[in-house]
Amino acid sequence: MATITPPNPHLAELKTDHFYHIGFNTGQDLKKMFGDVRFVLFGGTNTRMKKVAQAVADAFFPLPLGHELTPIGTTDRYHMYKVGQVIAVSHQMGMPSFSILLHEMTKLLAAAQAKDVIYMRIGTSGGVGLPGGSIVVTDLPVNGYLEPYYELVSLGKLHKRPAELDKEVRETILSLKGDLNVVAGHTMSVDCFFEGQGRLDGAICDYSEKDKFDFLKRAAEAGVRNIEMESVMFGAFCKVRIKGLHCCGVEVHSYFA
Amino acid sequence: MATITPPNPHLAELKTDHFYHIGFNTGQDLKKMFGDVRFVLFGGTNTRMKKVAQAVADAFFPLPLGHELTPIGTTDRYHMYKVGQVIAVSHQMGMPSFSILLHEMTKLLAAAQAKDVIYMRIGTSGGVGLPGGSIVVTDLPVNGYLEPYYELVSLGKLHKRPAELDKEVRETILSLKGDLNVVAGHTMSVDCFFEGQGRLDGAICDYSEKDKFDFLKRAAEAGVRNIEMESVMFGAFCKVRIKGLHCCGVEVHSYFA
Repeated sequence: MATITPPNPHLAELKTDHFYHIGFNTGQDLKKMFGDVRFVLFGGTNTRMKKVAQAVADAFFPLPLGHELTPIGTTDRYHMYKVGQVIAVSHQMGMPSFSILLHEMTKLLAAAQAKDVIYMRIGTSGGVGLPGGSIVVTDLPVNGYLEPYYELVSLGKLHKRPAELDKEVRETILSLKGDLNVVAGHTMSVDCFFEGQGRLDGAICDYSEKDKFDFLKRAAEAGVRNIEMESVMFGAFCKVRIKGLHCCGVEVHSYFA
Repeated sequence: MATITPPNPHLAELKTDHFYHIGFNTGQDLKKMFGDVRFVLFGGTNTRMKKVAQAVADAFFPLPLGHELTPIGTTDRYHMYKVGQVIAVSHQMGMPSFSILLHEMTKLLAAAQAKDVIYMRIGTSGGVGLPGGSIVVTDLPVNGYLEPYYELVSLGKLHKRPAELDKEVRETILSLKGDLNVVAGHTMSVDCFFEGQGRLDGAICDYSEKDKFDFLKRAAEAGVRNIEMESVMFGAFCKVRIKGLHCCGVEVHSYFA
Protein backbone atom coordinates (compact mmCIF):
# COMPACT_ATOMS: atom_id res chain seq x y z
CA MET A 1 0.00 0.00 0.00
CA ALA A 2 1.20 3.51 -0.83
CA THR A 3 1.55 6.37 1.63
CA ILE A 4 0.48 9.83 0.39
CA THR A 5 3.53 11.78 -0.77
CA PRO A 6 2.90 15.45 -1.67
CA PRO A 7 5.19 16.71 -4.46
CA ASN A 8 6.79 19.58 -2.52
CA PRO A 9 10.43 19.27 -1.39
CA HIS A 10 10.07 22.36 0.84
CA LEU A 11 7.76 20.53 3.28
CA ALA A 12 10.68 18.51 4.69
CA GLU A 13 12.24 21.77 5.90
CA LEU A 14 9.27 22.80 8.06
CA LYS A 15 9.65 22.25 11.79
CA THR A 16 5.89 22.35 12.30
CA ASP A 17 3.39 22.52 9.45
CA HIS A 18 0.22 24.38 10.44
CA PHE A 19 -2.90 23.40 8.51
CA TYR A 20 -4.45 26.70 9.40
CA HIS A 21 -7.84 26.51 7.65
CA ILE A 22 -8.71 23.08 9.09
CA GLY A 23 -7.16 23.60 12.53
CA PHE A 24 -4.53 20.88 12.85
CA ASN A 25 -0.71 20.86 12.85
CA THR A 26 2.14 18.38 12.68
CA GLY A 27 2.88 18.88 16.40
CA GLN A 28 -0.20 16.71 17.10
CA ASP A 29 -0.32 12.89 16.99
CA LEU A 30 -1.88 12.89 13.52
CA LYS A 31 -1.04 9.22 12.90
CA LYS A 32 -3.18 8.21 15.86
CA MET A 33 -6.01 10.53 14.78
CA PHE A 34 -5.99 10.03 11.00
CA GLY A 35 -3.64 7.14 10.12
CA ASP A 36 -6.60 4.83 9.38
CA VAL A 37 -8.37 7.14 6.88
CA ARG A 38 -9.21 5.49 3.52
CA PHE A 39 -11.96 7.78 2.17
CA VAL A 40 -12.51 11.53 2.18
CA LEU A 41 -15.92 12.73 1.00
CA PHE A 42 -16.02 16.41 -0.02
CA GLY A 43 -19.16 18.50 -0.60
CA GLY A 44 -20.32 22.10 -0.46
CA THR A 45 -22.25 22.89 2.69
CA ASN A 46 -21.70 22.12 6.38
CA THR A 47 -25.19 20.74 6.91
CA ARG A 48 -25.02 18.45 3.89
CA MET A 49 -21.69 16.97 4.94
CA LYS A 50 -23.00 16.32 8.45
CA LYS A 51 -25.88 14.37 6.83
CA VAL A 52 -23.37 12.43 4.73
CA ALA A 53 -21.27 11.62 7.81
CA GLN A 54 -24.40 10.52 9.67
CA ALA A 55 -25.43 8.27 6.75
CA VAL A 56 -21.96 6.66 6.73
CA ALA A 57 -22.19 6.15 10.49
CA ASP A 58 -25.69 4.64 10.26
CA ALA A 59 -24.61 2.23 7.50
CA PHE A 60 -21.15 1.18 8.64
CA PHE A 61 -20.19 2.54 12.05
CA PRO A 62 -23.37 2.88 14.20
CA LEU A 63 -22.86 5.33 17.07
CA PRO A 64 -23.15 3.98 20.61
CA LEU A 65 -26.21 5.12 22.59
CA GLY A 66 -25.69 8.65 23.86
CA HIS A 67 -23.04 9.59 21.27
CA GLU A 68 -23.41 12.09 18.45
CA LEU A 69 -21.18 13.39 15.66
CA THR A 70 -19.36 16.66 16.26
CA PRO A 71 -17.09 18.56 13.86
CA ILE A 72 -13.34 18.22 14.39
CA GLY A 73 -10.68 20.91 13.98
CA THR A 74 -11.67 24.52 13.45
CA THR A 75 -15.18 25.27 12.21
CA ASP A 76 -14.54 28.85 11.08
CA ARG A 77 -14.49 27.75 7.45
CA TYR A 78 -15.01 24.06 6.71
CA HIS A 79 -16.83 21.53 8.92
CA MET A 80 -15.09 18.15 9.13
CA TYR A 81 -16.46 14.87 10.50
CA LYS A 82 -14.68 11.55 11.00
CA VAL A 83 -16.54 8.24 11.12
CA GLY A 84 -14.38 5.11 11.14
CA GLN A 85 -12.01 5.29 8.15
CA VAL A 86 -14.14 7.95 6.47
CA ILE A 87 -13.82 11.74 6.62
CA ALA A 88 -16.74 13.87 5.40
CA VAL A 89 -15.90 17.56 5.02
CA SER A 90 -17.51 20.67 3.49
CA HIS A 91 -15.44 22.69 1.01
CA GLN A 92 -17.80 25.69 0.67
CA MET A 93 -18.26 27.14 -2.86
CA GLY A 94 -15.81 27.47 -5.73
CA MET A 95 -12.38 26.21 -6.72
CA PRO A 96 -10.30 28.60 -4.55
CA SER A 97 -12.04 27.47 -1.35
CA PHE A 98 -11.91 23.76 -2.26
CA SER A 99 -8.26 24.13 -3.34
CA ILE A 100 -7.17 25.31 0.13
CA LEU A 101 -8.89 22.28 1.68
CA LEU A 102 -7.28 19.85 -0.81
CA HIS A 103 -3.78 21.18 -0.09
CA GLU A 104 -4.22 21.03 3.70
CA MET A 105 -6.10 17.69 3.78
CA THR A 106 -3.43 16.05 1.62
CA LYS A 107 -0.62 17.31 3.84
CA LEU A 108 -2.57 16.21 6.94
CA LEU A 109 -3.06 12.66 5.61
CA ALA A 110 0.57 12.49 4.46
CA ALA A 111 1.74 13.48 7.95
CA ALA A 112 -0.67 10.87 9.37
CA GLN A 113 0.86 8.23 7.07
CA ALA A 114 -2.55 7.34 5.67
CA LYS A 115 -2.39 4.90 2.74
CA ASP A 116 -4.23 4.56 -0.59
CA VAL A 117 -6.88 7.18 0.16
CA ILE A 118 -9.85 7.79 -2.12
CA TYR A 119 -11.02 11.41 -2.44
CA MET A 120 -14.56 11.80 -3.67
CA ARG A 121 -16.44 15.02 -4.32
CA ILE A 122 -20.19 14.54 -3.75
CA GLY A 123 -21.47 17.79 -5.15
CA THR A 124 -24.61 19.49 -6.36
CA SER A 125 -24.77 20.84 -9.89
CA GLY A 126 -27.05 21.97 -12.68
CA GLY A 127 -27.88 19.31 -15.29
CA VAL A 128 -27.53 19.68 -19.04
CA GLY A 129 -30.22 17.68 -20.85
CA LEU A 130 -30.84 15.29 -17.95
CA PRO A 131 -33.91 14.84 -15.71
CA GLY A 132 -33.72 16.46 -12.24
CA GLY A 133 -32.23 14.23 -9.56
CA SER A 134 -29.91 12.43 -12.00
CA ILE A 135 -26.43 11.55 -10.76
CA VAL A 136 -23.44 12.32 -12.96
CA VAL A 137 -20.19 10.44 -12.34
CA THR A 138 -17.65 12.77 -13.91
CA ASP A 139 -15.59 11.04 -16.63
CA LEU A 140 -13.81 14.27 -17.58
CA PRO A 141 -13.90 17.69 -15.93
CA VAL A 142 -13.70 20.63 -18.35
CA ASN A 143 -13.38 24.39 -17.89
CA GLY A 144 -15.62 27.17 -19.24
CA TYR A 145 -13.98 26.83 -22.68
CA LEU A 146 -15.00 23.12 -22.65
CA GLU A 147 -11.33 22.10 -22.38
CA PRO A 148 -9.97 19.64 -19.75
CA TYR A 149 -7.61 22.13 -18.13
CA TYR A 150 -7.51 24.03 -14.85
CA GLU A 151 -6.00 27.46 -15.32
CA LEU A 152 -3.81 28.52 -12.40
CA VAL A 153 -1.96 31.84 -12.25
CA SER A 154 1.18 31.46 -10.11
CA LEU A 155 4.08 33.92 -9.79
CA GLY A 156 2.68 36.01 -12.63
CA LYS A 157 2.37 33.17 -15.15
CA LEU A 158 -0.52 31.06 -16.43
CA HIS A 159 -0.27 27.30 -15.89
CA LYS A 160 -2.74 25.10 -17.79
CA ARG A 161 -2.91 21.91 -15.74
CA PRO A 162 -4.61 18.92 -17.34
CA ALA A 163 -7.56 17.51 -15.35
CA GLU A 164 -8.32 13.82 -14.94
CA LEU A 165 -10.13 11.65 -12.39
CA ASP A 166 -9.39 8.07 -11.34
CA LYS A 167 -10.86 5.56 -13.84
CA GLU A 168 -10.94 2.59 -11.47
CA VAL A 169 -12.88 4.43 -8.76
CA ARG A 170 -15.27 5.83 -11.38
CA GLU A 171 -16.01 2.39 -12.87
CA THR A 172 -16.58 0.92 -9.42
CA ILE A 173 -19.08 3.69 -8.61
CA LEU A 174 -20.86 3.22 -11.95
CA SER A 175 -21.12 -0.56 -11.37
CA LEU A 176 -23.00 0.08 -8.11
CA LYS A 177 -25.71 2.33 -9.51
CA GLY A 178 -28.66 -0.03 -8.90
CA ASP A 179 -31.99 1.63 -9.73
CA LEU A 180 -30.68 5.20 -9.60
CA ASN A 181 -30.41 7.33 -12.74
CA VAL A 182 -26.61 7.41 -12.93
CA VAL A 183 -24.66 8.47 -16.03
CA ALA A 184 -21.00 9.06 -16.84
CA GLY A 185 -20.35 12.42 -18.49
CA HIS A 186 -18.23 15.52 -18.69
CA THR A 187 -18.65 18.10 -15.90
CA MET A 188 -18.06 21.77 -16.71
CA SER A 189 -16.62 23.93 -13.90
CA VAL A 190 -16.82 27.73 -13.87
CA ASP A 191 -15.97 30.53 -11.43
CA CYS A 192 -19.28 32.42 -11.53
CA PHE A 193 -22.65 30.90 -10.59
CA PHE A 194 -24.62 33.46 -12.61
CA GLU A 195 -22.69 34.72 -15.65
CA GLY A 196 -20.29 31.74 -15.67
CA GLN A 197 -23.15 29.24 -15.91
CA GLY A 198 -25.11 31.30 -18.43
CA ARG A 199 -27.92 32.17 -16.03
CA LEU A 200 -30.27 35.01 -16.95
CA ASP A 201 -31.06 36.01 -13.34
CA GLY A 202 -27.81 37.49 -11.97
CA ALA A 203 -27.45 41.14 -10.99
CA ILE A 204 -25.47 41.60 -14.23
CA CYS A 205 -26.40 39.96 -17.55
CA ASP A 206 -25.39 41.18 -20.99
CA TYR A 207 -26.37 38.18 -23.14
CA SER A 208 -29.69 36.92 -24.46
CA GLU A 209 -31.68 33.75 -23.82
CA LYS A 210 -30.67 32.59 -27.31
CA ASP A 211 -26.96 33.10 -26.52
CA LYS A 212 -27.46 31.00 -23.39
CA PHE A 213 -29.14 28.09 -25.14
CA ASP A 214 -26.71 28.18 -28.09
CA PHE A 215 -23.85 27.71 -25.63
CA LEU A 216 -25.61 24.99 -23.61
CA LYS A 217 -26.28 23.11 -26.87
CA ARG A 218 -22.60 23.38 -27.76
CA ALA A 219 -21.61 22.16 -24.28
CA ALA A 220 -24.01 19.19 -24.51
CA GLU A 221 -22.60 18.27 -27.93
CA ALA A 222 -19.11 18.31 -26.42
CA GLY A 223 -20.26 15.73 -23.81
CA VAL A 224 -21.08 18.03 -20.88
CA ARG A 225 -23.86 16.61 -18.67
CA ASN A 226 -23.67 19.03 -15.76
CA ILE A 227 -22.21 22.35 -14.61
CA GLU A 228 -20.73 23.30 -11.25
CA MET A 229 -17.88 25.26 -9.69
CA GLU A 230 -15.18 22.80 -8.53
CA SER A 231 -14.44 19.66 -10.59
CA VAL A 232 -11.80 20.92 -13.02
CA MET A 233 -9.56 22.12 -10.18
CA PHE A 234 -10.17 18.81 -8.34
CA GLY A 235 -9.27 16.86 -11.49
CA ALA A 236 -6.08 18.90 -11.98
CA PHE A 237 -5.06 18.31 -8.35
CA CYS A 238 -5.55 14.56 -8.87
CA LYS A 239 -3.85 14.49 -12.27
CA VAL A 240 -0.63 15.67 -10.59
CA ARG A 241 -0.65 12.00 -9.53
CA ILE A 242 0.11 12.26 -5.87
CA LYS A 243 1.28 8.79 -4.81
CA GLY A 244 -1.27 7.08 -2.57
CA LEU A 245 -4.21 9.23 -3.69
CA HIS A 246 -7.17 8.31 -5.94
CA CYS A 247 -9.90 10.80 -6.85
CA CYS A 248 -13.42 10.68 -8.21
CA GLY A 249 -16.21 13.17 -8.77
CA VAL A 250 -19.88 12.33 -8.25
CA GLU A 251 -22.44 15.05 -8.87
CA VAL A 252 -26.12 15.06 -8.01
CA HIS A 253 -27.77 17.59 -10.25
CA SER A 254 -30.77 19.87 -9.97
CA TYR A 255 -30.97 19.07 -6.29
CA PHE A 256 -29.86 21.48 -3.62
CA ALA A 257 -29.47 20.23 -0.05
CA MET B 1 -30.68 59.67 -3.71
CA ALA B 2 -30.26 56.80 -6.16
CA THR B 3 -31.97 53.41 -5.90
CA ILE B 4 -29.84 50.36 -6.82
CA THR B 5 -30.54 49.32 -10.39
CA PRO B 6 -28.92 46.04 -11.51
CA PRO B 7 -28.00 46.01 -15.22
CA ASN B 8 -30.04 42.96 -16.22
CA PRO B 9 -33.21 43.45 -18.31
CA HIS B 10 -34.26 39.83 -17.71
CA LEU B 11 -34.99 40.48 -14.01
CA ALA B 12 -38.18 42.39 -14.87
CA GLU B 13 -39.59 39.20 -16.38
CA LEU B 14 -39.27 37.14 -13.18
CA LYS B 15 -42.47 36.60 -11.22
CA THR B 16 -40.51 35.80 -8.05
CA ASP B 17 -36.75 36.11 -7.77
CA HIS B 18 -35.26 33.59 -5.32
CA PHE B 19 -32.00 34.65 -3.71
CA TYR B 20 -31.22 31.04 -3.01
CA HIS B 21 -27.82 31.22 -1.31
CA ILE B 22 -28.89 33.90 1.20
CA GLY B 23 -32.41 32.62 1.79
CA PHE B 24 -34.71 35.48 0.74
CA ASN B 25 -37.07 36.05 -2.20
CA THR B 26 -39.08 38.86 -3.75
CA GLY B 27 -42.32 37.38 -2.39
CA GLN B 28 -41.30 38.78 1.02
CA ASP B 29 -41.70 42.38 2.21
CA LEU B 30 -38.06 43.19 1.46
CA LYS B 31 -38.64 46.95 1.55
CA LYS B 32 -39.75 46.70 5.16
CA MET B 33 -36.83 44.42 6.06
CA PHE B 34 -33.99 46.03 4.08
CA GLY B 35 -35.19 49.35 2.64
CA ASP B 36 -33.13 51.33 5.20
CA VAL B 37 -29.77 49.63 4.47
CA ARG B 38 -26.91 52.07 3.72
CA PHE B 39 -23.81 49.92 4.41
CA VAL B 40 -22.92 46.30 3.70
CA LEU B 41 -19.72 45.01 5.32
CA PHE B 42 -18.33 41.83 3.72
CA GLY B 43 -15.64 39.58 5.19
CA GLY B 44 -14.49 35.96 5.09
CA THR B 45 -15.61 33.98 8.12
CA ASN B 46 -18.90 33.68 9.98
CA THR B 47 -17.38 34.31 13.39
CA ARG B 48 -15.47 37.40 12.27
CA MET B 49 -18.56 38.98 10.71
CA LYS B 50 -20.57 38.34 13.89
CA LYS B 51 -17.83 40.23 15.79
CA VAL B 52 -18.05 43.07 13.25
CA ALA B 53 -21.85 43.22 13.60
CA GLN B 54 -21.51 43.25 17.39
CA ALA B 55 -18.95 46.08 17.23
CA VAL B 56 -21.32 48.11 15.01
CA ALA B 57 -24.15 47.44 17.45
CA ASP B 58 -22.04 48.42 20.47
CA ALA B 59 -20.93 51.67 18.82
CA PHE B 60 -24.10 52.85 17.10
CA PHE B 61 -27.12 50.68 17.86
CA PRO B 62 -26.78 49.25 21.41
CA LEU B 63 -28.95 46.15 21.91
CA PRO B 64 -31.70 46.34 24.52
CA LEU B 65 -31.17 44.22 27.65
CA GLY B 66 -31.93 40.58 26.90
CA HIS B 67 -31.44 40.86 23.12
CA GLU B 68 -28.66 39.27 21.08
CA LEU B 69 -27.70 39.23 17.40
CA THR B 70 -28.80 36.24 15.37
CA PRO B 71 -28.05 35.50 11.69
CA ILE B 72 -30.84 36.21 9.19
CA GLY B 73 -31.75 34.20 6.08
CA THR B 74 -30.22 30.81 5.48
CA THR B 75 -26.96 29.95 7.29
CA ASP B 76 -25.96 27.01 5.09
CA ARG B 77 -23.35 29.14 3.32
CA TYR B 78 -23.02 32.77 4.42
CA HIS B 79 -23.98 34.22 7.82
CA MET B 80 -25.71 37.60 7.60
CA TYR B 81 -26.42 40.06 10.43
CA LYS B 82 -28.39 43.30 10.31
CA VAL B 83 -27.83 46.12 12.82
CA GLY B 84 -29.62 49.38 12.09
CA GLN B 85 -28.77 50.46 8.54
CA VAL B 86 -25.76 48.13 8.45
CA ILE B 87 -25.51 44.57 7.15
CA ALA B 88 -22.44 42.49 8.08
CA VAL B 89 -22.13 39.25 6.11
CA SER B 90 -19.49 36.56 5.55
CA HIS B 91 -18.55 35.70 1.96
CA GLN B 92 -16.37 32.62 2.69
CA MET B 93 -13.16 32.24 0.65
CA GLY B 94 -12.42 33.13 -2.96
CA MET B 95 -13.96 35.13 -5.78
CA PRO B 96 -16.56 32.54 -6.87
CA SER B 97 -18.13 32.39 -3.41
CA PHE B 98 -18.07 36.18 -2.91
CA SER B 99 -19.43 36.70 -6.44
CA ILE B 100 -22.61 34.71 -5.68
CA LEU B 101 -23.18 36.85 -2.60
CA LEU B 102 -22.62 40.13 -4.50
CA HIS B 103 -25.15 39.17 -7.19
CA GLU B 104 -27.82 38.12 -4.68
CA MET B 105 -27.20 40.95 -2.17
CA THR B 106 -27.43 43.54 -4.96
CA LYS B 107 -30.71 42.12 -6.26
CA LEU B 108 -32.05 41.93 -2.69
CA LEU B 109 -31.23 45.60 -2.00
CA ALA B 110 -32.63 46.65 -5.39
CA ALA B 111 -35.90 44.85 -4.63
CA ALA B 112 -35.89 46.52 -1.18
CA GLN B 113 -35.46 49.94 -2.86
CA ALA B 114 -32.39 50.69 -0.76
CA LYS B 115 -30.60 53.88 -1.79
CA ASP B 116 -26.93 54.92 -2.14
CA VAL B 117 -25.51 51.84 -0.47
CA ILE B 118 -21.80 51.50 0.36
CA TYR B 119 -20.30 48.02 -0.01
CA MET B 120 -17.10 47.48 1.93
CA ARG B 121 -14.96 44.35 2.05
CA ILE B 122 -13.15 44.09 5.39
CA GLY B 123 -10.79 41.25 4.63
CA THR B 124 -7.66 39.55 5.86
CA SER B 125 -4.63 39.31 3.60
CA GLY B 126 -0.88 38.74 3.47
CA GLY B 127 1.24 41.89 3.44
CA VAL B 128 3.96 42.74 0.93
CA GLY B 129 6.73 44.75 2.61
CA LEU B 130 4.51 46.04 5.44
CA PRO B 131 4.62 45.34 9.19
CA GLY B 132 2.06 42.81 10.48
CA GLY B 133 -1.24 44.34 11.53
CA SER B 134 -1.07 47.10 8.92
CA ILE B 135 -4.30 48.09 7.19
CA VAL B 136 -4.36 48.47 3.42
CA VAL B 137 -7.11 50.53 1.82
CA THR B 138 -7.14 49.21 -1.73
CA ASP B 139 -6.57 51.94 -4.32
CA LEU B 140 -6.47 49.45 -7.20
CA PRO B 141 -7.18 45.71 -7.23
CA VAL B 142 -5.00 43.69 -9.63
CA ASN B 143 -5.00 40.05 -10.74
CA GLY B 144 -2.17 37.49 -10.61
CA TYR B 145 -0.57 39.09 -13.69
CA LEU B 146 -0.51 42.44 -11.77
CA GLU B 147 -3.15 43.85 -14.15
CA PRO B 148 -6.37 45.59 -12.99
CA TYR B 149 -8.72 43.11 -14.66
CA TYR B 150 -11.03 40.36 -13.45
CA GLU B 151 -11.09 37.48 -15.91
CA LEU B 152 -14.53 35.94 -16.27
CA VAL B 153 -15.30 33.04 -18.62
CA SER B 154 -18.95 33.22 -19.72
CA LEU B 155 -20.64 31.25 -22.50
CA GLY B 156 -17.27 29.89 -23.66
CA LYS B 157 -15.56 33.28 -23.98
CA LEU B 158 -13.09 35.24 -21.85
CA HIS B 159 -14.21 38.65 -20.61
CA LYS B 160 -11.55 40.92 -19.12
CA ARG B 161 -13.49 43.29 -16.87
CA PRO B 162 -11.66 46.34 -15.54
CA ALA B 163 -11.58 46.64 -11.74
CA GLU B 164 -11.99 49.87 -9.81
CA LEU B 165 -13.14 50.91 -6.34
CA ASP B 166 -14.93 54.08 -5.25
CA LYS B 167 -12.47 56.95 -4.78
CA GLU B 168 -14.67 59.03 -2.49
CA VAL B 169 -15.30 56.21 -0.03
CA ARG B 170 -11.58 55.32 -0.06
CA GLU B 171 -10.50 58.88 0.71
CA THR B 172 -13.02 59.16 3.51
CA ILE B 173 -11.69 55.94 5.08
CA LEU B 174 -8.07 57.13 4.72
CA SER B 175 -8.92 60.47 6.36
CA LEU B 176 -10.18 58.62 9.46
CA LYS B 177 -7.07 56.53 10.09
CA GLY B 178 -6.05 58.13 13.40
CA ASP B 179 -3.12 56.31 15.02
CA LEU B 180 -3.52 53.09 13.02
CA ASN B 181 -0.94 52.06 10.40
CA VAL B 182 -3.15 52.60 7.35
CA VAL B 183 -1.79 52.83 3.79
CA ALA B 184 -3.35 53.07 0.33
CA GLY B 185 -1.98 50.48 -2.10
CA HIS B 186 -2.69 47.92 -4.79
CA THR B 187 -4.20 44.61 -3.67
CA MET B 188 -3.41 41.47 -5.68
CA SER B 189 -6.14 38.82 -5.86
CA VAL B 190 -5.47 35.21 -6.83
CA ASP B 191 -7.45 31.96 -6.95
CA CYS B 192 -5.06 29.72 -5.02
CA PHE B 193 -3.94 30.37 -1.44
CA PHE B 194 -0.77 28.27 -1.82
CA GLU B 195 0.56 28.27 -5.40
CA GLY B 196 -1.32 31.44 -6.37
CA GLN B 197 0.25 33.44 -3.55
CA GLY B 198 3.73 31.96 -4.09
CA ARG B 199 3.73 30.02 -0.81
CA LEU B 200 6.32 27.27 -0.37
CA ASP B 201 4.17 25.13 1.97
CA GLY B 202 1.32 23.81 -0.22
CA ALA B 203 0.87 20.13 -1.03
CA ILE B 204 2.21 20.94 -4.52
CA CYS B 205 5.09 23.35 -5.18
CA ASP B 206 7.33 23.35 -8.26
CA TYR B 207 9.14 26.69 -7.81
CA SER B 208 12.03 27.80 -5.61
CA GLU B 209 12.31 30.30 -2.77
CA LYS B 210 14.21 32.59 -5.16
CA ASP B 211 11.36 32.40 -7.74
CA LYS B 212 8.94 33.39 -4.95
CA PHE B 213 10.91 36.42 -3.77
CA ASP B 214 11.69 37.56 -7.33
CA PHE B 215 7.95 37.69 -8.01
CA LEU B 216 7.07 39.39 -4.70
CA LYS B 217 9.73 42.03 -5.46
CA ARG B 218 8.19 42.60 -8.88
CA ALA B 219 4.72 42.85 -7.31
CA ALA B 220 5.94 45.37 -4.70
CA GLU B 221 7.58 47.48 -7.43
CA ALA B 222 4.24 47.49 -9.28
CA GLY B 223 2.57 48.97 -6.16
CA VAL B 224 1.14 45.81 -4.58
CA ARG B 225 0.94 46.07 -0.78
CA ASN B 226 -1.05 42.94 0.00
CA ILE B 227 -2.34 39.68 -1.48
CA GLU B 228 -5.71 38.00 -0.99
CA MET B 229 -8.40 36.13 -2.90
CA GLU B 230 -11.33 38.48 -3.62
CA SER B 231 -10.66 42.16 -4.40
CA VAL B 232 -10.24 42.11 -8.17
CA MET B 233 -13.64 40.45 -8.67
CA PHE B 234 -15.17 42.93 -6.18
CA GLY B 235 -13.59 45.84 -8.07
CA ALA B 236 -14.89 44.54 -11.40
CA PHE B 237 -18.41 44.16 -9.98
CA CYS B 238 -18.26 47.76 -8.76
CA LYS B 239 -16.70 49.10 -11.97
CA VAL B 240 -19.81 47.97 -13.85
CA ARG B 241 -21.14 51.10 -12.13
CA ILE B 242 -24.41 49.89 -10.76
CA LYS B 243 -26.46 53.00 -10.03
CA GLY B 244 -26.86 53.58 -6.29
CA LEU B 245 -23.85 51.45 -5.31
CA HIS B 246 -20.43 52.56 -4.00
CA CYS B 247 -17.66 50.08 -3.15
CA CYS B 248 -14.46 50.07 -1.15
CA GLY B 249 -11.92 47.46 -0.06
CA VAL B 250 -10.17 47.57 3.30
CA GLU B 251 -7.72 44.79 4.09
CA VAL B 252 -6.10 43.99 7.42
CA HIS B 253 -2.99 42.00 6.67
CA SER B 254 -1.01 39.32 8.49
CA TYR B 255 -3.86 38.99 10.91
CA PHE B 256 -6.23 36.07 10.83
CA ALA B 257 -9.37 36.17 12.96
